[in-house]
Amino acid sequence: MTPGQVYAHVGQPFTPQPYDVAVLGAGRMGCLVAHFLLHARPDVRLLLLDKGGLPNEEGATILAPGVWTALDVPAQWQAHAETTRALALGTLAVAEGGLGQPGPNDAPTLERGLIELLDASTQGSRSLSELRGLPAGLADPSRFAAWREDVRALTYSVASLTLRAGQSAVRQGADLMLNAQAVPAAGGLSIDRLTVTNTHRVVVHETHQVAARQVVIAAGADGPALAEQHLGFVTHHAQAYRQWPRLNLPSTDTSPIVCAQFAAKHQRTAITLRPHAGGYTVVTPIHHRDPHGYQPIGGRLSSVPVGLRREVLQDLLLGMEGLPALATEALEVGRSLADIPGAWVALPAGGWPLWEALGESQGAGYSLLLGGEKADLVGAGVAREAARDVLARL
Amino acid sequence: MTPGQVYAHVGQPFTPQPYDVAVLGAGRMGCLVAHFLLHARPDVRLLLLDKGGLPNEEGATILAPGVWTALDVPAQWQAHAETTRALALGTLAVAEGGLGQPGPNDAPTLERGLIELLDASTQGSRSLSELRGLPAGLADPSRFAAWREDVRALTYSVASLTLRAGQSAVRQGADLMLNAQAVPAAGGLSIDRLTVTNTHRVVVHETHQVAARQVVIAAGADGPALAEQHLGFVTHHAQAYRQWPRLNLPSTDTSPIVCAQFAAKHQRTAITLRPHAGGYTVVTPIHHRDPHGYQPIGGRLSSVPVGLRREVLQDLLLGMEGLPALATEALEVGRSLADIPGAWVALPAGGWPLWEALGESQGAGYSLLLGGEKADLVGAGVAREAARDVLARL
Repeated sequence: MTPGQVYAHVGQPFTPQPYDVAVLGAGRMGCLVAHFLLHARPDVRLLLLDKGGLPNEEGATILAPGVWTALDVPAQWQAHAETTRALALGTLAVAEGGLGQPGPNDAPTLERGLIELLDASTQGSRSLSELRGLPAGLADPSRFAAWREDVRALTYSVASLTLRAGQSAVRQGADLMLNAQAVPAAGGLSIDRLTVTNTHRVVVHETHQVAARQVVIAAGADGPALAEQHLGFVTHHAQAYRQWPRLNLPSTDTSPIVCAQFAAKHQRTAITLRPHAGGYTVVTPIHHRDPHGYQPIGGRLSSVPVGLRREVLQDLLLGMEGLPALATEALEVGRSLADIPGAWVALPAGGWPLWEALGESQGAGYSLLLGGEKADLVGAGVAREAARDVLARL
Repeated sequence: MTPGQVYAHVGQPFTPQPYDVAVLGAGRMGCLVAHFLLHARPDVRLLLLDKGGLPNEEGATILAPGVWTALDVPAQWQAHAETTRALALGTLAVAEGGLGQPGPNDAPTLERGLIELLDASTQGSRSLSELRGLPAGLADPSRFAAWREDVRALTYSVASLTLRAGQSAVRQGADLMLNAQAVPAAGGLSIDRLTVTNTHRVVVHETHQVAARQVVIAAGADGPALAEQHLGFVTHHAQAYRQWPRLNLPSTDTSPIVCAQFAAKHQRTAITLRPHAGGYTVVTPIHHRDPHGYQPIGGRLSSVPVGLRREVLQDLLLGMEGLPALATEALEVGRSLADIPGAWVALPAGGWPLWEALGESQGAGYSLLLGGEKADLVGAGVAREAARDVLARL
C-alpha cells in the first residue's frame, strides 16, 4: 500500500483532485473514522484536514481525560464501549481495525481501575470500611456511605490514540492537510491553507475548491455551526467550554481513578479525579451548554480573580464538602483563564457520540460526527460504525 | 398608620436613619416580602430599594409570564402555590396578607385553565379526539396522543401584583427608594443614589451608609453576586438570560394556556403558550445556566441574523415539529436581541424559590431571597415565609 501525502505547511504545493471522502477535523473522531475507513477499503481516496495540527492544539482531543469505565453503560452502548477499550489497550484484532499496542513513545494505557464513592448504598456497593488505597486526605469518609469498583476501568491518552489513528490512515493511503481551514462548499469543500506572517498574524495563503463524494464533518464543537452556516442543515447540538484543573496530590501508575458522587447544598455533584503525570486531573460535571457568542473568562472568588470559570469554581466548592483535598493549595486555580487547561467540547443532543447523515448538496453527501463528553467511553465504536456507513454510500 | 416616604429621584433629600429591615430589590420577591412584613408588624422600620423603578424596567418581574398551574406541584410546595394563587386572584384574606381584588387599572387575573398536550398517555390524560377550542393550526394533532387539563390554572400580571404589593408596603409605612444602587456594607448597606446627566449618562449623585438590623437581598439574578462580592458569602445559585418571543395568533381572555410536551430530535421539549394581549407569549424551557461574563446576543439561522438567542431558536425549531404555528410568520423573531423581550432570571439551586440566611456581618443579619422560574407558582408563599423569618430575627 502507498502512503498518502502530508501537507503540513503552505510550502508544499497542493494540486486539487477529486476525493471519495473528505474528513473535516483531525481530532479524535476524524482520525478514527479515517483510519477505520481506509482499513476497510484501502483504495478509497480520502483527504483528512485540520485547521491546526494533529490533533489540533486548541481542540478538546488533546485535553480529553481519557477515562474508560464500564459502570452504568447502557446495554445499547456496550459494544461500542468494548471496541473503544480494546482499541485503547491494543487488544483489538488487526482485522477489526486494531492499532496494536502503544509503542514506547506513546503515552501508555493503564488498567488502574476506578473507585466510585457514593453517599448512599446502591446495588452492588460495598461498605466504606473495606476501602483501601485512596490518597490520604483526598476524601472525607463521613460523607460517603458506600463504594463501587470497576476493576476493568482504564486511563488512556486520547491525544496519543488520535495521533496513531491519523498516522495509520496516512500509512494506508489518506492524504493529510494540516493548517487548513476547510468548510463545506458546493459539491465538496473549500479549503483555505493558512500560514503565519512574521508579525504572527494567521493569513490565508491560498484557497482551493475540492470535490468530494462524501464529506464527514468531524470538527468537534465547531461541527454544528459548519453544517448550518455553509450547508443550511440546522442541527440541535450544543457546546460547552470545559476546564480541567490539576490537583497536586501524588499519584502513580497504579492509583485508581476516583469518582465521588454526593449531594451538597441542594445539588448533586460528581467529581472525577483522573491520575495523570504524578498528580490528578479534576473532571467536573457538565451542567449546561454555553450560549453562542460566549467568550470564556476566568472567575472571581470573593472578588479575587482566579483562572477557573465561575461555573467550575462552584462545582469545586460543592466538591470540597466531600473531597477536602480540593480546598487545599494542592488545587491549581491560576489567576486567569490561560492558566488552566480548557477547550470547547461538543454536546451532542442526547448526550452520546452522534453520527448522522445531514443530506446532499450538489452531488456531495454530508454527514456530522460528534464525539463529546462520552467519546472517551464509546468514541472508537461510533467512528467505526460511521466509517462503515460512509463506505456504504460511496 | 402613616405611609412611608418615597424617594423617587435625587431631588428629594434623604437623611439616613437606622432601619430594622432593608430590602434590596423592588421586584416581585422584594415587594412581596416588604408587604407581608409590614402587614404583620406595621411598626417595623423598613427601607425598600431598587436601582430602577417599581418594578425595575430591566428586571425579570416585568416580563414574567405569570402562569399558575397545579399540575405536577410536589406536595411540599402546594401550600405556597395556593397562597400565590389566592393572592393573584384577590381571594387571600386580608388577615393573611391579601391585597384584595385587582382594581380597574390593574391587569386582570384570568382563570382561563391550561391544556397540556402530551405525546404519550399518562395517568389522568384524555384522548385527543375530545379536545376542542385550540386555535386552528397551533398544534399538530398527529404529534400528540393525549392531553391533561388544569381548570384552576390562571394567568396574572406579575408586574401588576408587584406594584400593588410595593404600594401596600409604602401605605403600611415602608420607605421606598428608587434609582438607588444598594450593596451590602458593614452593619447594613451602602446606597448610591443615581441620576442621569443631560448626555444620558447614569452617574452617582450621592452615597449613604445606612444601618439595618436585617438586610434581605432580593435582587433577582444579581442577588448571588451581591452576597458574595460584598459579604463573602459564597452561594451556588446561577442565572440565565431568558427571552419571551411573541406569537401573533389571535387569543382572547378565555383562551386556555397551552403547554406542549413532546420528544423531537433526541430531546424532549416543553413549550408553553401564554395568551397575552390578543396573541401569545412563547415560554421555552430553561436548559442551562448562562455562564458569568456572558453578554446575550442575537443568533443566526443559516447566516441570517435574528433577535432570538441561538438557544431559544433551537428550542423553537424543535417545537415546530409539534406546534407548526411556530414555523409561520406569526412568530416574531426580530433582527437583533433588542427586538425580543428578555431579562436575566435567577436560577436558585434546586430549582424552586429560595430563602436562606447567609449570616451576620458587623451586627447586621443578611439573607438571600430568590424567586426564579417557579416564582409565578409559589413566589408569594415563599415571600410570606421569608417575612415571618425576618421578623423572628429582629
